[in-house]
Amino acid sequence: MASQALIKEFEDLLGKENVFSSEADRQSYSYDSAVLPPVVPAFALRPTTTEQLGICVKKLYDYGIPMTVRGAGTNLSGGTIPDSKESVVILTNGLNRILEINSDDLYAVVEPGVVTADFAAAVAQKNLFYPPDPGSQAVSTLAGNIAENAGGLRGLKYGVTKDYLMGLEFFDATGELVKTGSRTVKCVTGYNLAGMMLQSEGTLGVISQAVLKLVPPPKASKALMAVFDDMQKAAEAVAGIIAAHVVPCTLEFLDNNTIVRVDDYTKAGLPRDAAAILLIEVDGHPAQVADEAVVVERVLQQTGAVAVHVAKDAAEKFKLWEARRQALPVLARCKPTTVLEDATVPRSQIPAMMKAVNDIAKKYNVEVGTFGHAGDGNLHPTFLCDKRDKEEFARVEAAVDEMFDVAISLHGTLSGEHGIGTAKARWLEKETSRGTILFSQRLRRALDPKGLLNPTKLVGI
Amino acid sequence: MASQALIKEFEDLLGKENVFSSEADRQSYSYDSAVLPPVVPAFALRPTTTEQLGICVKKLYDYGIPMTVRGAGTNLSGGTIPDSKESVVILTNGLNRILEINSDDLYAVVEPGVVTADFAAAVAQKNLFYPPDPGSQAVSTLAGNIAENAGGLRGLKYGVTKDYLMGLEFFDATGELVKTGSRTVKCVTGYNLAGMMLQSEGTLGVISQAVLKLVPPPKASKALMAVFDDMQKAAEAVAGIIAAHVVPCTLEFLDNNTIVRVDDYTKAGLPRDAAAILLIEVDGHPAQVADEAVVVERVLQQTGAVAVHVAKDAAEKFKLWEARRQALPVLARCKPTTVLEDATVPRSQIPAMMKAVNDIAKKYNVEVGTFGHAGDGNLHPTFLCDKRDKEEFARVEAAVDEMFDVAISLHGTLSGEHGIGTAKARWLEKETSRGTILFSQRLRRALDPKGLLNPTKLVGI
Repeated sequence: MASQALIKEFEDLLGKENVFSSEADRQSYSYDSAVLPPVVPAFALRPTTTEQLGICVKKLYDYGIPMTVRGAGTNLSGGTIPDSKESVVILTNGLNRILEINSDDLYAVVEPGVVTADFAAAVAQKNLFYPPDPGSQAVSTLAGNIAENAGGLRGLKYGVTKDYLMGLEFFDATGELVKTGSRTVKCVTGYNLAGMMLQSEGTLGVISQAVLKLVPPPKASKALMAVFDDMQKAAEAVAGIIAAHVVPCTLEFLDNNTIVRVDDYTKAGLPRDAAAILLIEVDGHPAQVADEAVVVERVLQQTGAVAVHVAKDAAEKFKLWEARRQALPVLARCKPTTVLEDATVPRSQIPAMMKAVNDIAKKYNVEVGTFGHAGDGNLHPTFLCDKRDKEEFARVEAAVDEMFDVAISLHGTLSGEHGIGTAKARWLEKETSRGTILFSQRLRRALDPKGLLNPTKLVGI
Repeated sequence: MASQALIKEFEDLLGKENVFSSEADRQSYSYDSAVLPPVVPAFALRPTTTEQLGICVKKLYDYGIPMTVRGAGTNLSGGTIPDSKESVVILTNGLNRILEINSDDLYAVVEPGVVTADFAAAVAQKNLFYPPDPGSQAVSTLAGNIAENAGGLRGLKYGVTKDYLMGLEFFDATGELVKTGSRTVKCVTGYNLAGMMLQSEGTLGVISQAVLKLVPPPKASKALMAVFDDMQKAAEAVAGIIAAHVVPCTLEFLDNNTIVRVDDYTKAGLPRDAAAILLIEVDGHPAQVADEAVVVERVLQQTGAVAVHVAKDAAEKFKLWEARRQALPVLARCKPTTVLEDATVPRSQIPAMMKAVNDIAKKYNVEVGTFGHAGDGNLHPTFLCDKRDKEEFARVEAAVDEMFDVAISLHGTLSGEHGIGTAKARWLEKETSRGTILFSQRLRRALDPKGLLNPTKLVGI
């Protein structure tokens, strides 16, 4: 429990209304969206100016108190769970101003706590486009997206958060301000510290401001759905689309278990025998969209789709996407615990990976539904279980373990977009090397000598 | 001078033919393309396998010998000039294999010394596209491009080297292998060390392998040239093109002095009174290209272009681009010394920046020709002088100094694509902050405790 004197000091700085030390408040900030035990922090702080943010970091560093920065707590690998009961949570939701949207120079300047969807909407109002769309975008924050390098459905064509970060200001562990990058497309002035802060999960500094790249929006789009009775054929369709040099803005899929579960719940009349559904959207210039939709439809037919639906208008498009939108919410309702993974492989390896996921689930007698981003090989095998059943949960953990081995053997990765946090830290060396871990720890210790920034996350301290 | 025993040790490792210790060889590796004094190294090594590269780094580290990695030596900020006469130069031209070009998964795996243009051609042969095209691409190497985050003409639409780096393997200062990134579009496994290595100018590790992103090539393109009697009108045209949501693949410009100098040399009949020439190319789907060319032509007319030429075919396009291709070679011929800068501003600030560059040149009585990438605000003010004339060269240095101040005041950057090296290190703090320099030095010292990797470059050790 934190001393009253310390709490008082922060109340004087931020106002009583921005220091949260009640039991209920502390409980609220003890967990995030990962399936991990909660850790109740000492208290939480909500700075409302950049200057206050810097002072908070400096004070906590000087006092040797561990700190965990929290956007919306949508983290799926434990990155926003406090490290210990001494930890202080720094909330960014009091720093949620969009400082500039520049239509001439195609960038925006934002504070860390701006909600992703609010930002995308503000940008859209200026007839511009911010593509990264993580599943949690309705509540997630932009600095959280940066700290995790958040992905989403548009990775294949538009990239991920990494591809939109132009510049960054952040406080280092000691509270000193660091500036990196620029408002210009090109900038090689000094180390690419913005790149280093990406996906660093709050362990190297506290983001106070970001410059994000914007692009003109696509002028048209078209959506198609295809049903396959065989996963291999669906994968051949994905490969065929890329081989035809069509890069869809989204290329999603659902496996049989997900289809059945969604149909059980929505009674939408989905093809319950299908091995896979592919959902494809192309966007761009109207003539290009028309041409590409024809090419995609032809590839789908040639690779043996049982059925192909082309959305005729926005309402039909919305309906086509319903099954995909429902995938996670429906799977999450099936059992008390949802272990949502994001193992990722080069897209040509999806059939091998899907076969492995289903074989592994059978071997360990666990239920899995898989959906995800077929276009960029980012799968979401979702294990449905009850973590209170320790024996079952151990089987799920063993299955996940084996799944990661397969992903790595297929030249893939442990995590496409959910991060390492504490959830996946023990697999890190297997994908990289001992040298990589030691290098990362040296880097980290130099930048945070007291080990106070989210110390148990990633490579540890 | 290095000991014969040491040279012998490397000859045993690499073969006599891959250790260069003669006076002539050492002189050859004493300079790069920056206007800076040469530094003759002790000797140069040319490993031909990854394993040899790692052993070289480890040996040099163990012996405490500073090392400078050299691709093609096209560096414009001194990054490939040895730090001292004790330095050993590591050449990458013996590691120049393209290991894989994967059409299904749209990536390539390369060794560090592959020449950029050779790689682009190999990729094009597979009907794919690697967009980064630094001016030195005919000789520059891919790892050099990564170490400098090289740009080029296609920055506005296609981005720079940063946007194509998916994964990296490198040896840290001690010779340990570090692996980062993946062959997948999405990967958030561990720190983004690939991002950190970008533009780190050989100071954090020695690149041994890279995974690069490929894209399908555009199906069509069209080029236009416009002549303006006023820089402000040309800038309005650039802004108008972006405002019309056209993102050209290249949007280049030449100022009056460059036009006159090129015309003097080529007798091509260029408009010698023009304040600026804009060269614009749009690419993509044929219908989009046709539409965008019409929009661009309209914007050019509306903003008061004196003349607009639309290339009818590839031969005409080639001819239109001749003046741009000749800009640097012609300017470089005018005087013994060419100081090629790359101050960069948000594109809407180009008129202010161009006015400042010309006012500053007048104030210091120095000659400058400016051309560059108007689309991304990356200008190349090119100062023509003779560095043996110390008084004149001091005026050039004072002019460059003042020019950087203006670029920073316009929210721009010291360096869009040429790097910091030793040439621009003294301006670094002005653009960033003291905290940024200290943070960068802590980072660097932790990763290279003996200070042996290109120690005098960037933030120093």
